[in-house]
Order: sequence, then C-alpha cells, then structure tokens
Amino acid sequence: MKKVKTLFCFLLFLSTFNVNAQSNDSAIIRNIYNFSLTNSSCYQNLEFLCKQIGPRLSGSTGASKAIDFTKSLLTKAGYDSVFLQPTMVPCWVRGEKESASIQVNGKNIALQICALGGSVKTPKNGIVAEVVEVKSFEELANLGRKAIEGKIVFFNRAMDPTKIETFGAYGGAVNQRGSGASQAAKYGAVACVVRSMNLRIDDYPHTGAMRYDTTYPKIPSVAISTFGANLLSDQIKANNKLKFSMKTNCETKADVLSYNVVAEIRGSETPENIILIGGHLDSWDLAEGAHDDGAGCVQSMEILNTFQKLNIKPKNTIRIVLFINEENGLRGGVAYAKEAALKKEKHLIAIESDEGGFTPRGFSIDASKTQIEKIVSWKNLLEEYGLYDIRKGGGGADIGPLKDQGVPLISFKPDSQRYFDMHHAATDVFEAVNKRELELGAASISSLVYLIDKYGL
Amino acid sequence: MKKVKTLFCFLLFLSTFNVNAQSNDSAIIRNIYNFSLTNSSCYQNLEFLCKQIGPRLSGSTGASKAIDFTKSLLTKAGYDSVFLQPTMVPCWVRGEKESASIQVNGKNIALQICALGGSVKTPKNGIVAEVVEVKSFEELANLGRKAIEGKIVFFNRAMDPTKIETFGAYGGAVNQRGSGASQAAKYGAVACVVRSMNLRIDDYPHTGAMRYDTTYPKIPSVAISTFGANLLSDQIKANNKLKFSMKTNCETKADVLSYNVVAEIRGSETPENIILIGGHLDSWDLAEGAHDDGAGCVQSMEILNTFQKLNIKPKNTIRIVLFINEENGLRGGVAYAKEAALKKEKHLIAIESDEGGFTPRGFSIDASKTQIEKIVSWKNLLEEYGLYDIRKGGGGADIGPLKDQGVPLISFKPDSQRYFDMHHAATDVFEAVNKRELELGAASISSLVYLIDKYGL
Repeated sequence: MKKVKTLFCFLLFLSTFNVNAQSNDSAIIRNIYNFSLTNSSCYQNLEFLCKQIGPRLSGSTGASKAIDFTKSLLTKAGYDSVFLQPTMVPCWVRGEKESASIQVNGKNIALQICALGGSVKTPKNGIVAEVVEVKSFEELANLGRKAIEGKIVFFNRAMDPTKIETFGAYGGAVNQRGSGASQAAKYGAVACVVRSMNLRIDDYPHTGAMRYDTTYPKIPSVAISTFGANLLSDQIKANNKLKFSMKTNCETKADVLSYNVVAEIRGSETPENIILIGGHLDSWDLAEGAHDDGAGCVQSMEILNTFQKLNIKPKNTIRIVLFINEENGLRGGVAYAKEAALKKEKHLIAIESDEGGFTPRGFSIDASKTQIEKIVSWKNLLEEYGLYDIRKGGGGADIGPLKDQGVPLISFKPDSQRYFDMHHAATDVFEAVNKRELELGAASISSLVYLIDKYGL
Repeated sequence: MKKVKTLFCFLLFLSTFNVNAQSNDSAIIRNIYNFSLTNSSCYQNLEFLCKQIGPRLSGSTGASKAIDFTKSLLTKAGYDSVFLQPTMVPCWVRGEKESASIQVNGKNIALQICALGGSVKTPKNGIVAEVVEVKSFEELANLGRKAIEGKIVFFNRAMDPTKIETFGAYGGAVNQRGSGASQAAKYGAVACVVRSMNLRIDDYPHTGAMRYDTTYPKIPSVAISTFGANLLSDQIKANNKLKFSMKTNCETKADVLSYNVVAEIRGSETPENIILIGGHLDSWDLAEGAHDDGAGCVQSMEILNTFQKLNIKPKNTIRIVLFINEENGLRGGVAYAKEAALKKEKHLIAIESDEGGFTPRGFSIDASKTQIEKIVSWKNLLEEYGLYDIRKGGGGADIGPLKDQGVPLISFKPDSQRYFDMHHAATDVFEAVNKRELELGAASISSLVYLIDKYGL
C-alpha cells in the first residue's frame, strides 16, 4: 500500500510539474504569437526584398543586393555574430524575352513560354519544327527515334490535381522539366517544350531548373503556360503536322562568387549546440520570389528578432542561414554542410522554411522515431495555432546535405494549395503574400525552436 | 477461458467489421475528393455568380438574377425537387457613392468611406462637424453628452490581431458597427464613423449591417477604411478640433418579395429525415460576394452534384438551401425555420458554409456531447484531407433559427486568415478565390454529409 501511495505521490508530483511546465511554455508560446502578429518586421522586410530588390537569381545584381541588405539588417540588430559564407554559384541569364508561336489557319498564334534555368539558347533565328506531344518518358521511348528525330517534343503531363498536398503533384510531374530535354535529345529532338508546373490554368510560364545528361546533345528547353499547353495540345490533335516556332536567348556564364548569410544568438549554456533555421535568398528571375523563398528568409530572420525582443535567452546557439543558390545548384546548402563537417559543428536540428508564406499547418520531420515522438508530444501546445500536422516526412533542399552528418531535419509545412499558382512564375510577388499568414509562420517556427532549445531532442 | 476466447472473437469480428466499413468509407471519400478536384462545377458556377451577376444585395436586381440562375441550374440538373420559398426582405440602397474629407493645413484630404447597411443618409449638403475618437462604448459614456453633442463619433477600436481565429477578432470589434450609431446618438452625436472590420491596412471601406435603437435619433453611420482610420486618428491627435465632412445618399425602401432557393435529393430509406446544407445567396452591394457567400452557395449546390454524379444514393433526404437576406435581416433563415416548424420537418443536421472559400480546416459543432463525439470519431477518415479541427463550437447565422427546434448545427471551418481582408468590401471578387480551396471545401462538406447519412447522428 505504501508503495502505491509513493507511486501516486510521485505521479501527482510529475503531473503537477508537467502542468506547470506546460502552462509556462504555453504562456511563452502565446507571447511569441502575440509578438509576431503585432510587432514583427517580417512583412516589411519581405516588402523591401521584393519591391526594392526584386528578382534574386544566383549570380545576379539582385542576389548581391539581397545579401548586402540582409547582412546589414542582421548586423544592425546586434546579434552575437553575423557573417558571410562564400561559395561559387552558377550564373545563368535569360537574355531577351523568349517568343513562341504556332500557325493555325494561316494565322499566327503567340504562346507564352520561358526558357528553363540552365538551358542553352536556340540559334539566332529560332527553331521551327513539327511538334510531338507526349505524357511520359515511356511514351517517348515507344515512339522512338523515327517519330522524334528533327522534331520538338512537348511534354504535357499535368500535375495531378487529386493529390491533396500539392508537393506530391509537383513530384509526379517535375521530371519532365528536369530531364525532358535530354530524354528528347536521346531520340534526336531539336528542342523541348514542357507544360508549366502549375495546377491552375493561366497564361504564365513557370521556369525552374533543368539538367543535361551530357551523353546527348544539349537542346533548348522551355516551359509553356498551362493555358498555352492546352491550346497547343488541341491544335496538335487538329493537325499532327503542326509546327512550333520558338526563340530563346539564354546562356550560362562563368561561375560567380556569392555567399550564404549567417547570423546567430549564442547559447547561454551549450553554445556549441546549434539549432539551425534557414530559407534561401536566391529566387528565379521572373518575379520577386516572395513565397519562394523571400518568405522563408524573413521568417528565419524573425526567429532571432523574436528571441531578442522577447528576451528569451536560448541555452543553445540559434543560427539562421539565408542560403544562396537553392534554385539552380544548391551550392549554398552544400557549402554550408561541408564547412559544418570541417569544423565538426554539432547541430541539434536543422529547420527549413521553403514552401511559401502560407497559413501554418505543421512540420514534417526527418529524424529518429524517438525524436519524432518527442516533437509530436508538443502538439497540445501547438494545435491551437493551427499546427495539427506534425509527423514523419521530408526535410528540405538546403538542409538536406546535413543529413549525412546525422542531423535531424524539419520542414515547416504551410498550407500548400496556392503555392504552385505562383512557384517560379511572374505571379510570385509581394502582393500574393498575406501578412498574417507570413507572421503566423514565423511564430510557428519560433515556438518550435523555443521547445527544442528548452527540452532538447 | 472460454469467455475470454468468445470475447476475443467478438472483438476480432468487431475490428474486422470496422476496418472493412472504414476502408469502404475511405474509398468513397477519396472518390468524392477526386471528383471535386477534377470534375466539379463549383468554380465555374461561382464565376457566373460573380462576373455575370455580381453584387446581390437583398431586394436588388442582382439578387433576383441569382435566384433565377441557381434555380434554373438546379432544375436542369434534375434533382428530385427544386422550389422557391418566399419571404419579404428589406430593400436598402446605397445611392450615389459616398464622400468624406478632412482639412489639414488648409488642404482637403479625401477619405474612403461607405454607408453602413441600414443607415439613414446625411442631409443633401452633407454633415460637417468636429470628430471625437473613442475605442469603446465605455469611453463614449465617460465622455458623456457634453463632449459628444453636435459632434461626429469615430469608433476606432481595431480588430485584435492576436486572435488566431479571425472571427474572434471580428466578434470583439463588430459591436461598433452594429450599435455604434445609436450609442453615439444617445449622447447627441450627429453622425458615426466606424473603423472597417479589416485586419489589413488598406484603403477599402467595409460595409455591413447596423441597427438603430429607436429610443435615440437615427444618425448616419459609415465605415472608414483602416488606412483612413489611422490617418484620421493621427490628425485628431494633431488637432483636437478637427472637422470631418461626410455625405451619404443611402435609403431604406419598402420591403420586397424574395426567395430562398431549395433543392433536394430524396432519401431512399427515410426521406422524412433531412440533412440540410446551406449558404446565403445575397451579398453586400460593394463587390461580387465571392467568398461571402457565393462560395457557400456553389459548395452547397456541389454536394447534390457530387452525390448525383458519383451515384451515391442517400438514405435520408439531402436538401440544400440558398438563403436570402443573411446580410441585413436574416429573413430567409427565419422563414425557413418557421416553415420547417409548421410542416413538422425532421432535420438530422443543418450544415452551413459561410466563412469563405478557403482551404478546409474542420467543422465546429453545436450539438449534444454524444453527437459531437460521433462526428469526432470520423476524424481518422478526414484528417488526410486537412480536416483536423473538428470540435464543439457555433453553428451558423442562417441555420441558427433551427436551434430552437433541437436541430444539431455544424459550421464548415475553412482557414480564417484572409477572410476579413475582403469581407463586405470591394475586394471580395472571384479572383480572390482559389479554385482548389473552393473545391476542397465542397468535398469536405460532401464527405461529412456522406458519413452522417450513412451512420446517423
């Protein structure tokens, strides 16, 4: 009986302890959200990044300005250290705006295209050739060289609208953009046109990275708007000898020296342990990179601002990294991981925000079962802020190279429904970001960082 | 031992039964989402409602056209019954666009205002008077008649940005709009200006219903944009004798005959049991009423379309109601409940969609503990579609009058972050609705209706 009583007392103590700890955590998390929704500077920082700087493709003036701007902001804030981490980055330039057209009943119909990042350009007078539509690499292979040689291949497999998480739909279609050109060149195609990675029907082409398999000739590769893709498909059905004209002006220049921007608040107890949060500062050239990934950068910066302004002293070092070159090379992410390994740095966790500045939904975690369970156990503190969806899943591109060093990875998951309307297209502008959604994202990540710092992993 | 074995077998049977039932439900719900995301007509119906018809204030031509359009659509679809349910509705008209200004250093500064629905107009030459800013009715009462008489009262309590659910923030501010005029008139004010119910700072005034307490004189009442409210507040701080000029041209005309639009698929087993789903067809006059509540109407219509096209035969009658006059009178909701009582109709449930066409989050349920628990037990089927937030809470305005008849009520809960950017303002247009978000909402409600029809409540 005494044993039972002791156990009971112990359990009572534990539960009281838990209730107190939790109610204290609950109050601090409430403060974090209050701060974010009333006093954060992430929205105005994003406005500057989008409207005063604009597109920030690796190697561009915009990218350099963004590095200077964010470094200067972080330095002025007086964090414990702010530094640049050098890396060479590719420098691909679009040149003059692309053009494309088809002839229908003797009438010229212009189509909206854009070169894919990394593509070679067409000859000066452009390319005119018959166009063959396929939905997959298998279909292409079945058609074979006889049907493809000398022609333009049009990859028109749409993103699957029935995937609830739109990143799944992206994953199911993006190999057309990444490898379509070389797959087509394998059978003698002279150019490649890819349906934009966009779930919406509109007239904006979406760019993005493509890679050449050097076994085959490098042929020009472009994205066509979803509206244009549907129109082109209809016209091919009506005329299987339809010719497609296209002209692009892009080229790859010599690599350029660029930088990750790093800032940290040093830990008060175990400064050697690092909690890393990051987004990427580079964007595609067609828009302002507001959701992709201005949002992730200003949210990362906001974590430090929140800890500083609320006077939360972390036990571990909170470090943010604004990575360079996520879009077309991942050189920033790779350089960061390389240096971390060299310096034998210990990362408790690496968190990435690169899925847009939308309303928070949760976190996906690439870590051990025990670590995932620990994070999931904080759900009761986070659910009232809409963070219901906390589970095992992928990390992120820029933090990915840290996985080999055994670092647990977390990707912040905002709602994904609108992301691909804007992703890599001219529509990804500041006006497409809702202030509250952006701020809630910053608060969500800050709260998670607070809990990881306090309880470890 | 035998007992244990029997129990074990029974439990095994139960769990197998559950797994089979659940996997069948899971497949049907998957079909519902697939249909919604690929073949639904709710987005095109919303486009027609917004772009071909436009504003639909009760008593207006737009409202009549919307009734004709939806009735005709539902009739063409061949549902078991489609009918109009008559009710008289108020007819308030805005007249010529309002104007307002202040004089700062001899310069005229125009401010964006709009009359509140139900307000009387100013005299022909407008009203010019000193303006007094208050944040609450208490502050107004403390100032008293001496400070208020002959002046314009400016209610400038902002919606609280720290509320995560924005409807809570709305609830905390909207009494200024609803009762501000009479509260001000009580102390001799000549007009009332209310900060727009908007969490964003922009230059769009947001209208909405106001009511007079007939104990006091009816004074003109307007909303000012949040940008204008901040500017006005700053100028009052600089000059406490600041005069505000305003002119409005609105008036209330005689009541007009109007209608709820009702359609149903009759139940195959217990047709006398009704599952009701509704939204409201009327909107404010300043915009297209896309989110408020075109979205709820086209989603309600989509439930019937989904059941019909997927050949799901409900046991109970599925009835949709497109209510009239939610915005400024609730006459449609009241008339519906009155007739339901007269006919002794039995509603299993009433579900409302009137919080915008945003990404689904869950349902709030106003029902008995047992009923709520039953609905919550379906979470495992609904969570993968983002419906995490299923819990006790309020029903909706139009279905509210059914509560007295003991009908359980459910409100569909989409994400609330962007709603008040557009609510009752010129920004509530078709372009502000994302197709997938709208379709996911329709699928979410259809899935819930499917489960309620199958398992009862």
